[in-house]
Amino acid sequence: MRLEKHHNILIVGLGLLGGSYAMALSRRGYPVSAITLEQSSVDYAMNKGLIRYGTTEVEPDLIAKADLIIFALYPHTFIEWMEQHGHLLTSGTIVTDVTGVKGSIIPRVKALLPDGVEYIAAHPMAGREVGGVENADDRIFYGANYLVVPTEDNTPDAIELCEDLGWTLGFRTVSQLSPERHDEMIGFLSQLTHCIAVSLMCAKDDPELVRYTGDSFRDLTRIARINDAMWSELFLENREVLLGEMDRFRDTFERLYATVRDGDRDQMREMMRISTARRALFDKP
Amino acid sequence: MRLEKHHNILIVGLGLLGGSYAMALSRRGYPVSAITLEQSSVDYAMNKGLIRYGTTEVEPDLIAKADLIIFALYPHTFIEWMEQHGHLLTSGTIVTDVTGVKGSIIPRVKALLPDGVEYIAAHPMAGREVGGVENADDRIFYGANYLVVPTEDNTPDAIELCEDLGWTLGFRTVSQLSPERHDEMIGFLSQLTHCIAVSLMCAKDDPELVRYTGDSFRDLTRIARINDAMWSELFLENREVLLGEMDRFRDTFERLYATVRDGDRDQMREMMRISTARRALFDKP
Repeated sequence: MRLEKHHNILIVGLGLLGGSYAMALSRRGYPVSAITLEQSSVDYAMNKGLIRYGTTEVEPDLIAKADLIIFALYPHTFIEWMEQHGHLLTSGTIVTDVTGVKGSIIPRVKALLPDGVEYIAAHPMAGREVGGVENADDRIFYGANYLVVPTEDNTPDAIELCEDLGWTLGFRTVSQLSPERHDEMIGFLSQLTHCIAVSLMCAKDDPELVRYTGDSFRDLTRIARINDAMWSELFLENREVLLGEMDRFRDTFERLYATVRDGDRDQMREMMRISTARRALFDKP
Repeated sequence: MRLEKHHNILIVGLGLLGGSYAMALSRRGYPVSAITLEQSSVDYAMNKGLIRYGTTEVEPDLIAKADLIIFALYPHTFIEWMEQHGHLLTSGTIVTDVTGVKGSIIPRVKALLPDGVEYIAAHPMAGREVGGVENADDRIFYGANYLVVPTEDNTPDAIELCEDLGWTLGFRTVSQLSPERHDEMIGFLSQLTHCIAVSLMCAKDDPELVRYTGDSFRDLTRIARINDAMWSELFLENREVLLGEMDRFRDTFERLYATVRDGDRDQMREMMRISTARRALFDKP
């Protein structure tokens, strides 16, 4: 099933991501409405033409007529919303999301859905250091990766629709992976990197650092400006996996530490060469 | 003493940094000549107007008439050059450099200088992931920090000249700090960050990472493309300090690890808030 121009799309949560989804989809002519917490977000999105209709109320009619509902909420808010309002979803509706952890979320959401409502999980690998619908910008999807995370319960139709959503939003790649594989990848690529940046930033309190710094420190700590409410939630929802990835990094760091301590220049250079070769694959085309 | 338009400037080593120095200084009307290893680098720099004269020979006359000699070499090459040719330097000449470590280098260079030649150490905190004079670009100095590293042997004249060189090259800040303080700062800001990026890149061998990655991993590992010959040398020249900074990072990483393991969300969020507040100071104006 492809995304069609007559499909009613409802976005729940007009933050940075929800707003950027709304921008991309409205730009391409899809009818987008939204439910969100603050009237100011609705007003902004209406003024900027991001949505056709918005409300701070959970309106049963709006939910019933939606073909695709995109939840752009924090994990716990997503679950709470489903607990309170999940019964309003009607058969035939497809639900997707933007949640950064999957293994612990998917079964809980599924258990709260009425019969005939299908949840196909997704994770857009895009964001900014600033939040809120006022910072919405669909250019964050250009060159970025979109992950579709099906389980064996999902239908080919829903998977295809979710993939089509990723392409429609403008992502550079759309991939399918299992919840377990997703959480491993995100534990390494996203959560571990944030752990490293936060640790580095907390490691030294020296007001003169900024006068002496080069770009390497700036780049490495860009993500050290972190939404503590959201990320602490993501870390704890993926705790065992994240601890494993932190162990993995620590082991390699210790190997490099040993080469410095022992003056083992050959082994040090070998690690640097492996690093250089692998990193070359990551430059954006 | 200020840098004057009649000062003869000699650059030894036309690589990325030497070439970028030449570009900035020639653009501003200073007479720049160069000694470097490869004739092709001389030809390129002459063709592009980066230098007025260049040679692959260590010409005594060229050295004798230089008012300021800038060594843009690897640490061990700098030392070796001084061992072989240092006697050619003439009284009244001021020597500076771009070397990324200071404590272990300064006394060795000083011991090789003839009477009346003054070495004032400096470290431009700028670079690129690509080397060679063909990649020279004086825009790498814009917004960057220039560090002057005097000892008690240096005269106010030489310190002022070196500071003036930093401003003339176009750096955003010029700071003075001691060799010990320099090596500590660089150990933390530059060497530790490269250790982290290399360790992260070596930690997981998975060809699919690139399909799933977000920008945070890309940013964190930009410097994982690393010149292993140069950086292994810098690490080992600053070994004790670097090990101390690696210890410091590891301790903080372990603190964060404990918050994840123990589900201590309050402490985790506190670290994230400290990180966010400190990082805010580092955004370029």
